[in-house]
Amino acid sequence: MPRQERAIQTRRIILETAAEMFDQLGYDATTIGGLIDRTRLTRGGLYFHFTSKEELARAVLDEAVTMEGLAPQTFKLQEWVDLALLLAHRLPREPLLSASIRLSVDVKARGMFGTRWPDWIAVGQDLLTAARERGELLVHVDPQETARMFVAAWTGIQLVTETLPDGDLSTEVSGFLRLTLPNIARPGVLAKLDTSPTRAAHLLAPEAGSPATGRP
Amino acid sequence: MPRQERAIQTRRIILETAAEMFDQLGYDATTIGGLIDRTRLTRGGLYFHFTSKEELARAVLDEAVTMEGLAPQTFKLQEWVDLALLLAHRLPREPLLSASIRLSVDVKARGMFGTRWPDWIAVGQDLLTAARERGELLVHVDPQETARMFVAAWTGIQLVTETLPDGDLSTEVSGFLRLTLPNIARPGVLAKLDTSPTRAAHLLAPEAGSPATGRP
Repeated sequence: MPRQERAIQTRRIILETAAEMFDQLGYDATTIGGLIDRTRLTRGGLYFHFTSKEELARAVLDEAVTMEGLAPQTFKLQEWVDLALLLAHRLPREPLLSASIRLSVDVKARGMFGTRWPDWIAVGQDLLTAARERGELLVHVDPQETARMFVAAWTGIQLVTETLPDGDLSTEVSGFLRLTLPNIARPGVLAKLDTSPTRAAHLLAPEAGSPATGRP
Repeated sequence: MPRQERAIQTRRIILETAAEMFDQLGYDATTIGGLIDRTRLTRGGLYFHFTSKEELARAVLDEAVTMEGLAPQTFKLQEWVDLALLLAHRLPREPLLSASIRLSVDVKARGMFGTRWPDWIAVGQDLLTAARERGELLVHVDPQETARMFVAAWTGIQLVTETLPDGDLSTEVSGFLRLTLPNIARPGVLAKLDTSPTRAAHLLAPEAGSPATGRP
């Protein structure tokens, strides 16, 4: 493997291992020493990429706002739904994403690094504003208020679901969308939105069969 | 002041100060030493009431499920709404309540003490089941699923709102109720529910003017 490629891979391993530790132990209890144990790197090998726990936390949070799997859809509202479902599908599989929520609800880490919630609210607000311009929303819907409420509710659903036996985040988020969309989407649009818990898996692997747009 | 009454008051001061520390510093960074500094009690005075940080955390969580201010209403659904609004009003004012959420999202404390979310879900489920028996709910509403989703969403709204400048929990929870109730309550009931952000303040001080039942 070329040296540069190996370096990129090592950086990734460090970042994901740090994310796992933040997620499992919390910010305070995560240490560079523990990270060296888990990655089996030398201190020098680690410090080549990251020189402090703070730098690791910032790098984890920098990767938290991600649109992977999102594709243009007939309705902007479907893209907003897709974002919620994609994250619900990915979070239990990607330590970087769950760690970013853990750091956001940890008082100490939050005080040091802030949260990525304002960025997520801005993303949702942009999509909802575009949806409104295309006439997809009921007239009373305020894009900013709705985006804020969704980011908040989504976060709480993640935090509570991970503590429940057999809790499945995709199912919960899908249920939440079904509960709220009738008071957001115009009826004609609502009938065409796909809020299925399995949609994200299809979006991330379109070759697996299901089309990327509309109902399967 | 009689000795017993003073002891009860001291216990309360310790508990609220510990709650403030859990909330502001997190579970790990809260210490008995720091608590002695803040309460200005002697170690013996403190140990008379609580012998460990674990015991304090358990006592905080024991007070987390509270119905204070809740009164019987014409509609069971109004009682459920009231519970959401009462907690939204009280939480920013009562360290015991915010500490219980902080402990629930702290990985270490959660591992040691669990969370009170299952208790809250059970309370909501009971109210929604009673509402369904009285014909207040739309036919598709599942009391357990809806209760679970609400506890989760409410928690997330609290966690995100406290980080936003000018975020007001009562306003946010009221907005969330207005977003979701149209897909939960039967139309005739919906029109009579009071979801105003100021309702909880009236419920907690009925002598201040507003009636406890129905719209003001």
